[in-house]
Amino acid sequence: MAEIVTFGEAMIRLSPPRFQRLEQARCLEVEIGGAELNTAVGLARLGHAVAWVSVLPAHPLGRLIANRVRETGVDDRWVRFSQQGRCGLYFLEFGAAPRPTALWYDRQDSAMARLTPGQFDWDRIFEGARWFHVSGITPALSDGTAGAVMEALQAARRAQLTISLDLNYRARLWDRDKARQVLSPLIPYCQVLFASEADAEYLFGIQGESFVDIAAQWRQRFGVFTVIATRRESELVWRNRLAVIGANAEQVEESPWYEVEIVDRLGAGDAMAAGVIHGLLTGDLQKAVQYGAALAALKHTIAGDLPWINPEEVEATIRGDNLNIRR
Amino acid sequence: MAEIVTFGEAMIRLSPPRFQRLEQARCLEVEIGGAELNTAVGLARLGHAVAWVSVLPAHPLGRLIANRVRETGVDDRWVRFSQQGRCGLYFLEFGAAPRPTALWYDRQDSAMARLTPGQFDWDRIFEGARWFHVSGITPALSDGTAGAVMEALQAARRAQLTISLDLNYRARLWDRDKARQVLSPLIPYCQVLFASEADAEYLFGIQGESFVDIAAQWRQRFGVFTVIATRRESELVWRNRLAVIGANAEQVEESPWYEVEIVDRLGAGDAMAAGVIHGLLTGDLQKAVQYGAALAALKHTIAGDLPWINPEEVEATIRGDNLNIRR
Amino acid sequence: MAEIVTFGEAMIRLSPPRFQRLEQARCLEVEIGGAELNTAVGLARLGHAVAWVSVLPAHPLGRLIANRVRETGVDDRWVRFSQQGRCGLYFLEFGAAPRPTALWYDRQDSAMARLTPGQFDWDRIFEGARWFHVSGITPALSDGTAGAVMEALQAARRAQLTISLDLNYRARLWDRDKARQVLSPLIPYCQVLFASEADAEYLFGIQGESFVDIAAQWRQRFGVFTVIATRRESELVWRNRLAVIGANAEQVEESPWYEVEIVDRLGAGDAMAAGVIHGLLTGDLQKAVQYGAALAALKHTIAGDLPWINPEEVEATIRGDNLNIRR
Amino acid sequence: MAEIVTFGEAMIRLSPPRFQRLEQARCLEVEIGGAELNTAVGLARLGHAVAWVSVLPAHPLGRLIANRVRETGVDDRWVRFSQQGRCGLYFLEFGAAPRPTALWYDRQDSAMARLTPGQFDWDRIFEGARWFHVSGITPALSDGTAGAVMEALQAARRAQLTISLDLNYRARLWDRDKARQVLSPLIPYCQVLFASEADAEYLFGIQGESFVDIAAQWRQRFGVFTVIATRRESELVWRNRLAVIGANAEQVEESPWYEVEIVDRLGAGDAMAAGVIHGLLTGDLQKAVQYGAALAALKHTIAGDLPWINPEEVEATIRGDNLNIRR
Amino acid sequence: MAEIVTFGEAMIRLSPPRFQRLEQARCLEVEIGGAELNTAVGLARLGHAVAWVSVLPAHPLGRLIANRVRETGVDDRWVRFSQQGRCGLYFLEFGAAPRPTALWYDRQDSAMARLTPGQFDWDRIFEGARWFHVSGITPALSDGTAGAVMEALQAARRAQLTISLDLNYRARLWDRDKARQVLSPLIPYCQVLFASEADAEYLFGIQGESFVDIAAQWRQRFGVFTVIATRRESELVWRNRLAVIGANAEQVEESPWYEVEIVDRLGAGDAMAAGVIHGLLTGDLQKAVQYGAALAALKHTIAGDLPWINPEEVEATIRGDNLNIRR
Amino acid sequence: MAEIVTFGEAMIRLSPPRFQRLEQARCLEVEIGGAELNTAVGLARLGHAVAWVSVLPAHPLGRLIANRVRETGVDDRWVRFSQQGRCGLYFLEFGAAPRPTALWYDRQDSAMARLTPGQFDWDRIFEGARWFHVSGITPALSDGTAGAVMEALQAARRAQLTISLDLNYRARLWDRDKARQVLSPLIPYCQVLFASEADAEYLFGIQGESFVDIAAQWRQRFGVFTVIATRRESELVWRNRLAVIGANAEQVEESPWYEVEIVDRLGAGDAMAAGVIHGLLTGDLQKAVQYGAALAALKHTIAGDLPWINPEEVEATIRGDNLNIRR
Repeated sequence: MAEIVTFGEAMIRLSPPRFQRLEQARCLEVEIGGAELNTAVGLARLGHAVAWVSVLPAHPLGRLIANRVRETGVDDRWVRFSQQGRCGLYFLEFGAAPRPTALWYDRQDSAMARLTPGQFDWDRIFEGARWFHVSGITPALSDGTAGAVMEALQAARRAQLTISLDLNYRARLWDRDKARQVLSPLIPYCQVLFASEADAEYLFGIQGESFVDIAAQWRQRFGVFTVIATRRESELVWRNRLAVIGANAEQVEESPWYEVEIVDRLGAGDAMAAGVIHGLLTGDLQKAVQYGAALAALKHTIAGDLPWINPEEVEATIRGDNLNIRR
Repeated sequence: MAEIVTFGEAMIRLSPPRFQRLEQARCLEVEIGGAELNTAVGLARLGHAVAWVSVLPAHPLGRLIANRVRETGVDDRWVRFSQQGRCGLYFLEFGAAPRPTALWYDRQDSAMARLTPGQFDWDRIFEGARWFHVSGITPALSDGTAGAVMEALQAARRAQLTISLDLNYRARLWDRDKARQVLSPLIPYCQVLFASEADAEYLFGIQGESFVDIAAQWRQRFGVFTVIATRRESELVWRNRLAVIGANAEQVEESPWYEVEIVDRLGAGDAMAAGVIHGLLTGDLQKAVQYGAALAALKHTIAGDLPWINPEEVEATIRGDNLNIRR
Repeated sequence: MAEIVTFGEAMIRLSPPRFQRLEQARCLEVEIGGAELNTAVGLARLGHAVAWVSVLPAHPLGRLIANRVRETGVDDRWVRFSQQGRCGLYFLEFGAAPRPTALWYDRQDSAMARLTPGQFDWDRIFEGARWFHVSGITPALSDGTAGAVMEALQAARRAQLTISLDLNYRARLWDRDKARQVLSPLIPYCQVLFASEADAEYLFGIQGESFVDIAAQWRQRFGVFTVIATRRESELVWRNRLAVIGANAEQVEESPWYEVEIVDRLGAGDAMAAGVIHGLLTGDLQKAVQYGAALAALKHTIAGDLPWINPEEVEATIRGDNLNIRR
Repeated sequence: MAEIVTFGEAMIRLSPPRFQRLEQARCLEVEIGGAELNTAVGLARLGHAVAWVSVLPAHPLGRLIANRVRETGVDDRWVRFSQQGRCGLYFLEFGAAPRPTALWYDRQDSAMARLTPGQFDWDRIFEGARWFHVSGITPALSDGTAGAVMEALQAARRAQLTISLDLNYRARLWDRDKARQVLSPLIPYCQVLFASEADAEYLFGIQGESFVDIAAQWRQRFGVFTVIATRRESELVWRNRLAVIGANAEQVEESPWYEVEIVDRLGAGDAMAAGVIHGLLTGDLQKAVQYGAALAALKHTIAGDLPWINPEEVEATIRGDNLNIRR
Repeated sequence: MAEIVTFGEAMIRLSPPRFQRLEQARCLEVEIGGAELNTAVGLARLGHAVAWVSVLPAHPLGRLIANRVRETGVDDRWVRFSQQGRCGLYFLEFGAAPRPTALWYDRQDSAMARLTPGQFDWDRIFEGARWFHVSGITPALSDGTAGAVMEALQAARRAQLTISLDLNYRARLWDRDKARQVLSPLIPYCQVLFASEADAEYLFGIQGESFVDIAAQWRQRFGVFTVIATRRESELVWRNRLAVIGANAEQVEESPWYEVEIVDRLGAGDAMAAGVIHGLLTGDLQKAVQYGAALAALKHTIAGDLPWINPEEVEATIRGDNLNIRR
Repeated sequence: MAEIVTFGEAMIRLSPPRFQRLEQARCLEVEIGGAELNTAVGLARLGHAVAWVSVLPAHPLGRLIANRVRETGVDDRWVRFSQQGRCGLYFLEFGAAPRPTALWYDRQDSAMARLTPGQFDWDRIFEGARWFHVSGITPALSDGTAGAVMEALQAARRAQLTISLDLNYRARLWDRDKARQVLSPLIPYCQVLFASEADAEYLFGIQGESFVDIAAQWRQRFGVFTVIATRRESELVWRNRLAVIGANAEQVEESPWYEVEIVDRLGAGDAMAAGVIHGLLTGDLQKAVQYGAALAALKHTIAGDLPWINPEEVEATIRGDNLNIRR
């Protein structure tokens, strides 16, 4: 029985060995990733029982994804294998200043995008669970997935789960109007919202003098209790500084800033969400932003989208241990 | 100005390092391949000026294919880059007895499949050319490509080119009835037909006591002058024996049998076609089956779909030189 | 709830890329393996719910093993992580005729070898199960593991499971006298015994004019119902022929012989056991030897110790499908 | 018909995977490079029709170079394959502060160095062209190549091409006196000169209080219209800052400074030349230094000597777009 | 005949390609390392005749170590191959800020740890030698190795060698009390002591306002003539600053600080010891700290534990040459 | 002091990963090889003290060769490092039937080829030695090396060493007349001659009805006591059969035939020479051909030119042990 459930697509990520151009590639490294899966992995690595709900193609690539999901310890029992639809792919090219890292999606017509409502028994999936997490990418995939998200949210509310949504606006998937129209009825189901300040303004015109202001507007317009955002300074491609900020009606909390040597930038926001959910499940908003920032920072040091972190190193990061070799 | 023109799709081939299962892959080797491209490369390596006509997506993967085409010396000037459609992919898993090698296509909705008639100026493309080659895969991709093949064949006839067609029936692309219906009006344009005995029987009910009989039926029903087929014995995955047979109205010729240690089985039939076309352009049917068999045999020893052979090693193979180290 | 339970150690296998000498190695490929784990994986790949019981060190290498076990779909819920003991390793060097493949164990003082009786709740583990499988390697590791095997066998009998034992004599682990002394009281618990003709003779002096004779002696002396053995012809390192034979009181069955192109010879006997158990669980002795031989043959074509096979390719192998590329 | 023609040698570059010492190497990565080829590639990637003129050995390594040249889109039709002479090589070892990157040439007696005058039909090569570019390395190779450069310059003047020369003094190839003696009669043919301030002073005693002064001296002594130089700050091996400055009789222009995370330092100056030539062909001196600096900066982020850049990323670099992931 | 003798264990180091987690590893890179071996290699690379004394298992892994020792030019003639005991291993995982690099030893029960006194003929080993070096790791391995160190020190004193000891306290090998008890009688044999300020305080309560104070206490309590320590600033994992300080009764010397781009942090302290010993053998304390710092800095730029440096690059580092490419 | 001395050049071998064409290579694997070095390594692996005499360039590639020579246990103390001349290279492309393996030398103007007589103190080198071995490649490199071989042979005769010569005719290095002229005065110094039947006939017109006849002619014309040849059947590239035959005035001995699965064909003849020399030094002609054939067979299974064999596996091969996994 899972304590936490997430719902979304996973893709296969193909990238040439670092800094080679994709158009020169003679081999591609294979990772898997997907916003809600990444978050599920972060939570499983912190010791939670997590189930990831998705649709995969009945194909070696679909099995590849399921194999690796199980490898992380995330429960794949609710994943459906479909004879319809492709396996979503994305291609990734690592950059270096002044050339940013770039990616290209090849996810059209995926098994997940072909999902139609009514295929998951959400009430059964949520038995015994405490938290449901989804991102704005899932409803962006197709009308079918948007419908399925609504089903899941309604069932999660019935089951009295805490619900979190990561806006995660992707301009390649949908435009502003469509996103606003689909997301607006979904957000009121959520107690916790992950939303960058840029997305808040772009999608819903929400802006403010302070993060407290912004959070207040989310609360007023959508009833969201807690709002979380990452702050990042990116003067280079392989060195960044970042922190996490969160606010609810009573308080605003900000994590320390971390200087990160970047190994792989992908999935940092999803790892942050895992840290925040863990913090809220086991502590308070302060713990949430601390764990969120520590997971985000650590994720930058790990190859692939998945946050293969350990609880001890999260704690050492929060404590600010020195960077000497651990022997 | 190209002496020979071929027309078809090229895909990116992704395969785990030998014998790993695709569902375990941590990296994938990148090759390119496509029936008519493979044949074009074989002809270019033998010294002919060859142009390959195709549609590629305006995307790093499309450029990857064009780059590698130019690397081989094939002329890509007529390749169109399209904003529509994906880059076709195929996934390949190497087997070993008793497990055969397997492949999975992911080529739906490719830039090439989205081709509509009227986009190529075939008369200009064929200026100065002597030979046009296409396979049955191209018309199988979509109605648009089938229409484009018919346009090309009509233009090739106008330009008095010799025309060859490799049936290359692929059950994953279309069924027997559709294939017969589309191919039947195309075959009469061809002087040279590559058709396995199995495809001849399955698609058109053509069978006979001897290859001469079979060729006669092709001639009677479709007016094809020369018919070519490969014969192969495959008791193992990494060792085969093969030969090439050809017949026209006057004669039947069969190459010697070659014992091959297989490095990569893909593209052997397309390399054979290149050898046959070279033989017919520069000699007679006997030379055609000799070169066809030598190219097919050599292709088995080369990684990837493309026949990176040299004229000297083709000649050494035909002479039957010994297998001592060349120093 | 698992249908089948196996119990044994898994090690990390380290091997230089093919044919390099271990003493020259600049990198080592990492696989995992262990007799009972290998068998569990074969059964899981055939669709059974299988749990593998073991002890692993609380260390990244122990987690590596658990991760990969889950990746295969085998249930690791009963695996204990211990602060005591090392992670067993073995080093493997691939040969080629006339130099055989060789391996070196480095498994002393492993977490599993330090197991003491009483640490597993076998009655709970066996709830709902139908079959228990163990090999002679597990009791060879230490007195503690030998005691744990006896506990498991007694609990399995109480739970009315079918019990199978693979003798798997390893001269590096114990000598003949010790092996005979420890194994003798264990064998009577088993209905199914995997025993090579060489081991039968060496350990227990069991020999006979035919396999039926040998099986009869096993039955008379230890009450074993079914006896299974592999037959192998190894004139080269990378090409073998093999078949499986089995006998019970009523019948003797022998599989076809398979010609195998060997990719990785390790774990073939364990894959055979998986095929036999599957055959017996879902059919009869004839099906058992057929599946046993097909899994053994297929395992030779797969890198690593684990039989990453698929049901469809097992069936194709049993049908004797040809070795053409599957497209 | 090429718009731009460059003339020089290309070598095969062999380097151990990053940071391994050459004397420990177990494998070497293969790239190609050569000053004028690098510049040709940069121009081809920006959309120009570029031909590279050279001599290569009739040997697999010579073909390797030609293959890769075609892969980039540069026209290799004028490349001569010679039975005489070796394929030039260079060995490269990447450093890290405080150990600089180092290289060793093995280019003596190359096919190019054996070139004798009269072998290229420069008038035909320059038909339809607008620009000819060469570096000081070509005349340094041998008396034969020096003679061929003079032939090319005279033909380029006849054809009214703009001519650029990159001094590129290499102390390993010739000494100061020889360089001055050979280069002095060549420089007056050039309208555009790439010359570091250090080379200007060392070879010709040209120095000045400002870059305008230096450019004025080049103009007075050799009639050069435009002079270009890179400025670089190198406190570390993997992080540099750089800018490009250019002056003619009317103006001096300096690009912004770029902070670069270095992936591969080789070929940055040649990429700069490509950017400058593109700027001058399509704009003015300001555009030239902007494009020169952007290409130089981007080249640092790309593995190998060749500037596999895209026009869009050059433009984004000039605009100063942020370094967030492009999705 | 060796000028310098060192004595200690070497292990095989296994690390996943950079930044992969050990628990995900599919391959491991193989290096060798050991404190005294690392120092021996540094000295051999500077041109000294150096012998390394050790015990290795009679096993391919033991041979691997001996092979690589000879590859460096260190003399392995005194290395004993033992049928008893394992080959020591250690596993290494590279980190990035804020996650430090970590390592796990698997060296229990090694051939070296099983050493018993009396097995080396130290008088013969020291014939013609001038210097003996050992670290605190050797006596930490077992009572047998501690006894062998005492034998060696007594023989070295008899042979009038200069003796150096690197404290190198490793908490995983022994605790403070045991370390103090074993090391206290060994230190008085040494003229040169490498001791970090942290170890000095932790093990012996030695602390002071200045390094001169600390050195004076070492001199008073143990008669040590020269004391050396590294100073390091580690705000990131892949960038550090470091210097070396040394003091004797007459003087204190400090090297310049070096900014290092870190390729591999392991073995830097042992390389420093090599530089110091070289400086003292061929110059004075000032030269010692200069060479010590230069070797430590350069070692950070070289993959593996062994300092594969060259005399010329040590000298260039000491001179502070710029970081331009050496061509 | 070496028991056996060999004299010859070593080159760096560069080959693309198996079966890639050299002209497509993106990386090259680095091995070292040279006829007399290969033989020296075989003898060292069998336990002899062997010194290899050569000239290497003072360059990282020269050090690479010396490092690897020491790694094998061969003594490199007499190797001279020269400021003159290149490092010899050769490029290797693996084939598969019907395409043979091919290689290209790039060894002109090497440091060894620039050797002039008088540079080695052969009397000192041969102190305490019993055997001197050289191949016909060494005198083929240049007049200087031919002179040095004559010096070495005269000194070896003075020192009463047994002398062996491996004809090893290479048509790329010299023609028949030159070879005959240079080799004729060298052969009379030798007691043992390795000469294929083809070389005997081609160079000296020696042929016969039996190997005894051939050996008798060598004895009559050149005074050679023992003649050795390999017999090989090569129907495929990756499977051969081979045996060794030897004859002296009293007897003819032939080894068993070995079926070999070929990993790397290079250096097999040189390994054979090592086995023969070992057999003659420690036994008789029968032992010589047995060890010669076993080393040749085993060498085929080992990557690179050097015979990294072990005495135990040579003995197992001679015994004809089975090919089961050694555990």
